Amino acid sequence: MIPKLCRVDLTRNVVAYESLPDDYVQYGGRALSARILLQESDPRCDPFGRSSFLVLATGLLAGTPGPAVHRISIGGKSPLTGGIKESNAGGMTALRLSQIGIKAVVITGQFVGKVPLVLHLSESGGELVPMREIAFLGVYETGELLKERFGGGCGMAIIGPVGERRFRAASVAHMDKDGSPSRFSARGGLGAVMGSKGLKAIVVERGTHKVELHDKRVFSQAVKEFLEVTRATPKTGEMFPKYGTPALVQIINEVGALPTRNYSSGRFELVDEIDGETVYQNITLRGGKGNPTHACMPGCPVRCSNVYPDKDGNALVSPLEYETIAMLGANCGIGNLDQIAELNRMCNDFGLDTIETGGALAVAMEAGVLRFGSFEDARQALNKVRDNEILGRIIANGVRVTGEVLGVRRVPQVKGQGMSGYDPRGTKTVGVTFSLSPMGADHTGGTGVTTPHVDRLSPNGHVDNSRQLNFLYAGVDSIGICIIASEAVTDKPTIMDRLLRGTYGWSPGGDVFRTLGRECLKMEREFNLKAGFSKVHDDVPEFMREEPLPPHNCVFDVPREEMEKFYNF
Amino acid sequence: MIPKLCRVDLTRNVVAYESLPDDYVQYGGRALSARILLQESDPRCDPFGRSSFLVLATGLLAGTPGPAVHRISIGGKSPLTGGIKESNAGGMTALRLSQIGIKAVVITGQFVGKVPLVLHLSESGGELVPMREIAFLGVYETGELLKERFGGGCGMAIIGPVGERRFRAASVAHMDKDGSPSRFSARGGLGAVMGSKGLKAIVVERGTHKVELHDKRVFSQAVKEFLEVTRATPKTGEMFPKYGTPALVQIINEVGALPTRNYSSGRFELVDEIDGETVYQNITLRGGKGNPTHACMPGCPVRCSNVYPDKDGNALVSPLEYETIAMLGANCGIGNLDQIAELNRMCNDFGLDTIETGGALAVAMEAGVLRFGSFEDARQALNKVRDNEILGRIIANGVRVTGEVLGVRRVPQVKGQGMSGYDPRGTKTVGVTFSLSPMGADHTGGTGVTTPHVDRLSPNGHVDNSRQLNFLYAGVDSIGICIIASEAVTDKPTIMDRLLRGTYGWSPGGDVFRTLGRECLKMEREFNLKAGFSKVHDDVPEFMREEPLPPHNCVFDVPREEMEKFYNF
Repeated sequence: MIPKLCRVDLTRNVVAYESLPDDYVQYGGRALSARILLQESDPRCDPFGRSSFLVLATGLLAGTPGPAVHRISIGGKSPLTGGIKESNAGGMTALRLSQIGIKAVVITGQFVGKVPLVLHLSESGGELVPMREIAFLGVYETGELLKERFGGGCGMAIIGPVGERRFRAASVAHMDKDGSPSRFSARGGLGAVMGSKGLKAIVVERGTHKVELHDKRVFSQAVKEFLEVTRATPKTGEMFPKYGTPALVQIINEVGALPTRNYSSGRFELVDEIDGETVYQNITLRGGKGNPTHACMPGCPVRCSNVYPDKDGNALVSPLEYETIAMLGANCGIGNLDQIAELNRMCNDFGLDTIETGGALAVAMEAGVLRFGSFEDARQALNKVRDNEILGRIIANGVRVTGEVLGVRRVPQVKGQGMSGYDPRGTKTVGVTFSLSPMGADHTGGTGVTTPHVDRLSPNGHVDNSRQLNFLYAGVDSIGICIIASEAVTDKPTIMDRLLRGTYGWSPGGDVFRTLGRECLKMEREFNLKAGFSKVHDDVPEFMREEPLPPHNCVFDVPREEMEKFYNF
Repeated sequence: MIPKLCRVDLTRNVVAYESLPDDYVQYGGRALSARILLQESDPRCDPFGRSSFLVLATGLLAGTPGPAVHRISIGGKSPLTGGIKESNAGGMTALRLSQIGIKAVVITGQFVGKVPLVLHLSESGGELVPMREIAFLGVYETGELLKERFGGGCGMAIIGPVGERRFRAASVAHMDKDGSPSRFSARGGLGAVMGSKGLKAIVVERGTHKVELHDKRVFSQAVKEFLEVTRATPKTGEMFPKYGTPALVQIINEVGALPTRNYSSGRFELVDEIDGETVYQNITLRGGKGNPTHACMPGCPVRCSNVYPDKDGNALVSPLEYETIAMLGANCGIGNLDQIAELNRMCNDFGLDTIETGGALAVAMEAGVLRFGSFEDARQALNKVRDNEILGRIIANGVRVTGEVLGVRRVPQVKGQGMSGYDPRGTKTVGVTFSLSPMGADHTGGTGVTTPHVDRLSPNGHVDNSRQLNFLYAGVDSIGICIIASEAVTDKPTIMDRLLRGTYGWSPGGDVFRTLGRECLKMEREFNLKAGFSKVHDDVPEFMREEPLPPHNCVFDVPREEMEKFYNF
């Protein structure tokens, strides 16, 4: 069966399925989203206008029995950066879409009524359902009401009140395999784009469609090798399953790049209170609903996610991730995991990106409006987001707006998006990624913290390193495989080559990840140039080139002239 | 005597005079500022960083006995737009600078101490004087303390608390000839750039330097003709002297381009309460300190300024201008001149641009945070600016930030600067100017409301019209003559030619204004391209191309492709 494209026009209240256009067949995930946005949308559009697009795209391997291949890519024009954005997540959305035969959903137009709409998709067709009772509800409660209405097994993408109000730090939550809306397309403010369309949720029914593999034997053999390599690799076989991404807390602190008190230090004195070991101990000692090793979607061999319990063993939040701990914790001067988890849960419920929010809270702390280290101040500020009070609206618009309103100069952002858990002065490849990624200051382009042959503090080698990592991860995000689950095989491209050949009978060839990623980056750059970006926008904020960061007391000094060569490929 | 350049480095606490470099001799005012910024500063700099520049430049005829030729140009990189900005004003600053032989002041670096500095300039040299007692004082009180300290006859440029706090709607006030700091370099947020340098005021002593005219006879004859033409022209001989710029209120309302309730209508039902005739009647009937015909600087033949009195005849504010009445009045739904004058005085005192502020208040009204038509709400919001409360900080950052924070889509701005008293859908040349002027949405590039051969509502002819007007007014601002005082002679270029030849022995030739302005625009565009702008940024906000404006129910429909040809000259 030819996969389908679902087109939704909110202005005209139309939902239609069509055969996937030939132009799009070879793309998946992030690259498919980029291709659609570049080909069909106007890069100059107002992200909150009726001509802006929101795309949900499944990866090249979605629906297959491959390992951790059901990431969902949400794409659009970011209201934070004004450029292209893709934000992918685990959960059930992509798998359910593939089961009803849909490869991508393309949403345009704008519904300007007062009642929020739910886009309900099933094998037999789609419809827009008004649901007055979920207006401005939190993500968790919305999820429960949607499960009551549509059943528990559906894939769901949900925004919170922050997205409905079109604030720029708005995320999109996805239902995980256990029925909790805990997987986030967090970055870039795409939840606000969804909100601007009048859409509160997308619900995808189970379906019967199965991806027909071109060569089962080739595919199965590659999966087998994938799993063997993954198990045998210390990071994916031991570290991530046990500690999850919080394993990075000590590593990045040791490197001297853990954002602390609004990027004024690269080390946090309370690091031992918030590290991976503490996460693991708290979960295992408290028992109850806690789980240190949790899979966010079916078929993941690594299971780096977790369920973090409160002291009584009730589930507090899932997952508690490195970037959240860095941004809501160290960067706000907060050295208490339970407090961080509580803030995390609030962000999730309101539909706020924890990274953008942690950055914004810390900028407000630097401005003296909140106190560094004060959980109570942070909690009250987040309640003001929920209650739509003025300070809440500022925070909910992210790092740049918070810095502008409160008159702060140390504002850690690039292209309007807040930096995400790594200080570019302590590990410089990430500074190149923040500056040059089409996504703004987003670590998923590649941090390069552990690249063996590049000196983190020297100004040299980071442009090449970042470019290679950006190729790699753009490829990963196009295949729709998880960045962490794929870690053991990224330098074994033949495995991925055979997974694609086993599925389709073709492969892009070469180093599969990087071949796909290279083309994806080209499309995204083209979109951004058309949206008005130039090399001028490709740099860290000025203060990072002037103000040395403890403990290494380095500035970011990768030469601009070298960075300008990033896209010469 | 060769004129001097004063260089100030706040980081190193150095004030030095040098001979004006040869490169700069042929430039004045806006063009001189552009030349210095382009040649010496980095267009990519953080406007609030230590490498940003603030320039004060006198015009080509400053210090001569020409009519209304002592405008002062303040230039720098705008924190609103991120592009080049020049904001000129009347008052005594330029005349006093010319009297101490200084053609321009170039300020760089940053003083990070807590005590605000005063740059004190005299014929014998300059110094930076700390003055703890003026920290965060209003403009009026600061002016009084500066007069006590330095004497009443000085030229002065002063910022209010808004500038000291680096909020983006911050203006710079200049002392007028009567010792009131009432003339504003209002637009572009340059007061915040001054504040970021740690500079609260610039005080210029009287001096003995006189401009030596190259040919007195030629100069005097041209002045004579200038004055004759000005007197004989109805606008400059009658309308502006009697009504000042408030004469425009009825004209722009009739045209259907008077911004009303956040640019949702082009006509205001209470227009008769706030028009030029009412201004004139209130001033003349109340008597006292009121004055309908006031010169903002020595030697002005038009005297379009006014002193607006309260009901008891005490001076309430000077001047009350068209754009202020439009933006703090009609655009906020406020139809009462005394209320508008009171808000105007508050803006002046806090160091806020009335245009940007009126725009921001109206956006907050649209968001439901304040009520349209409520003087009391507006007054309280401005008091929150003074008291540095959160809503005040939002308003003080201008139209774009207010719209972002409060989640409003109808945000009338271009390149981050708020539109200034004209709706582009009712008079389309101004939309081209707002879109293409290097200054962002600034009417001083040319509104074209009264251009006889162009249909205001048709999409045609506006690009050429705007381009010609931009040439003209950039020339006017480079000569340093007042845009209104020059109105009668702009199409008699030989008069200006002879004024320049009489002063220097040379002239740029051709249509003097447009020859000078053309070169000025080229330099400014070059700066902006280097600062990261592209054609993508040269358009009105999307809602103005979609949402028809009453009463004519037109959208802004000048084709983008035609607008992209603006700089083909």
